[in-house]
Amino acid sequence: MSESRHKKPVLYSYFRSSCSWRVRTCLNWKGIDYEIKPVNLLKEEQEVPTLEIDGLVLTQSIAIIEYLEETHKENPLLPEDPGERALVRSIVQAIASDTQPVTNLRVIKYAGEDHKEEWAKHWMSVMFKGIEDQLARVAGDYCVGNKVTLADVCLVPQVFNAQRVNVDMTQFPTIQAIADRLLELEAFKRAHPYRQIDCPADLKEN
Amino acid sequence: MSESRHKKPVLYSYFRSSCSWRVRTCLNWKGIDYEIKPVNLLKEEQEVPTLEIDGLVLTQSIAIIEYLEETHKENPLLPEDPGERALVRSIVQAIASDTQPVTNLRVIKYAGEDHKEEWAKHWMSVMFKGIEDQLARVAGDYCVGNKVTLADVCLVPQVFNAQRVNVDMTQFPTIQAIADRLLELEAFKRAHPYRQIDCPADLKEN
Repeated sequence: MSESRHKKPVLYSYFRSSCSWRVRTCLNWKGIDYEIKPVNLLKEEQEVPTLEIDGLVLTQSIAIIEYLEETHKENPLLPEDPGERALVRSIVQAIASDTQPVTNLRVIKYAGEDHKEEWAKHWMSVMFKGIEDQLARVAGDYCVGNKVTLADVCLVPQVFNAQRVNVDMTQFPTIQAIADRLLELEAFKRAHPYRQIDCPADLKEN
Repeated sequence: MSESRHKKPVLYSYFRSSCSWRVRTCLNWKGIDYEIKPVNLLKEEQEVPTLEIDGLVLTQSIAIIEYLEETHKENPLLPEDPGERALVRSIVQAIASDTQPVTNLRVIKYAGEDHKEEWAKHWMSVMFKGIEDQLARVAGDYCVGNKVTLADVCLVPQVFNAQRVNVDMTQFPTIQAIADRLLELEAFKRAHPYRQIDCPADLKEN
C-alpha cells in the first residue's frame, strides 16, 4: 500500500460549483477529514470537483460520492433495499443529469448572453416540476422518507442555483421545505458556498 | 412476495432514445428476458425508459442499470475494485450527465430550430474531446480495460447520436474503435434502434 493512501484527502473545489458542493456535503456527512484546494472555475484551471483519496484521483461528482458510499460505510447515504436505492438514484439523476448540466455556466453562456437567466430559469422550472411531483409521493422529512440520502446531497445546491436565477420556488413547496430542513444540518451548512475559503468576502458567512 | 415479482419485466422504450438503448443493452447483457412496450417519445406519452421489474416501477436509465447490476450479479458491468468502479462511473457520468442531456431533443429544439444541428454538434464535439483524452489513457478493447462495463453501455448510443448530427468522428479514434468493437457483440447488436419493433420500416434491419 503506497504512502499516498494515508494522506489526507484533497478536494479541488470551487465555492459556487454545485458539483463541488455535493462532494463537500458527502465528505462532511461521512466525517472524513479533508483539505480543500480552491480552483477558480471561471478561469477553468482544472476540472472540479476532483478528489485525491486513497492514492486515486477521482473526477465526476456522482462517481466520487458513489465511491465514498462504497468505501465509507458509516453514515450511509443510500438505503439497503435495491428498490429504494433505485428511487434515490432516480432523483439524483433527475438533478445531476437532467437539470444541472443543461443549466451550467458554459451551456447558458453558449445559449446567448441575452438569454442566460431566461434559459436557466426555463429549464430549472421544467425539471423541478417533475422532481416536485415525484417528491410529493416519496418524501418524508427528506427526499426519500426520513433519512438523508444522495438525493438530498444533490438537491440543496440545485435549489440554491434556482434561487440565484429567480425561479419562483413557491411552485415547488416540497422541494423548498426539504432544502430548508437540510440546511439546518451541520454537514450541509459547512458545505455551503458562503462558508468556503474561496468565497469572496462580500458574500462570506461564518 | 407479490405475484408481480414473478412477471416478465416490461421496458417502456423508444427505439431511438439513447437512454432506452442503455437499458436494453444492459438487460440483454445480463440475459434477462423482457418485453418491450414502445412509447412514441415525440408524442411524449410517457417517460422512457421506465422498467417494471420485481414489482417496482423504475425510471432514469442510470438508476435502472445500477439496480440491474445490484440485483443480477451474473455478467457484471462494474469491476469489483472501488477505484475502478469510480473510473467506470466517471465515464458514465461524462456521457449521461455532461453530454446526452445537453443535446437531447427537447433541449436542442429550445435552442432554436435554425441551430439544432449546430448546437448538438458543438456540445458533442466538446464533450467527446474530454472523453477521448480519458479513454486514450484507460481503454483497452473497451472503455476501461478489456471488460465490458456500464461505460460501454452508455458510449454506443452517444456515438450513434454524434454520427446522426455529422460530428467528425475521425477526431475521436479511440471512441470510434471501441464503439465499433462493441457493436459486434450480440447484446449491443440486439439493443440497436434499427432492430427495435417500433423502428420505422425504412430504417429497420434484421
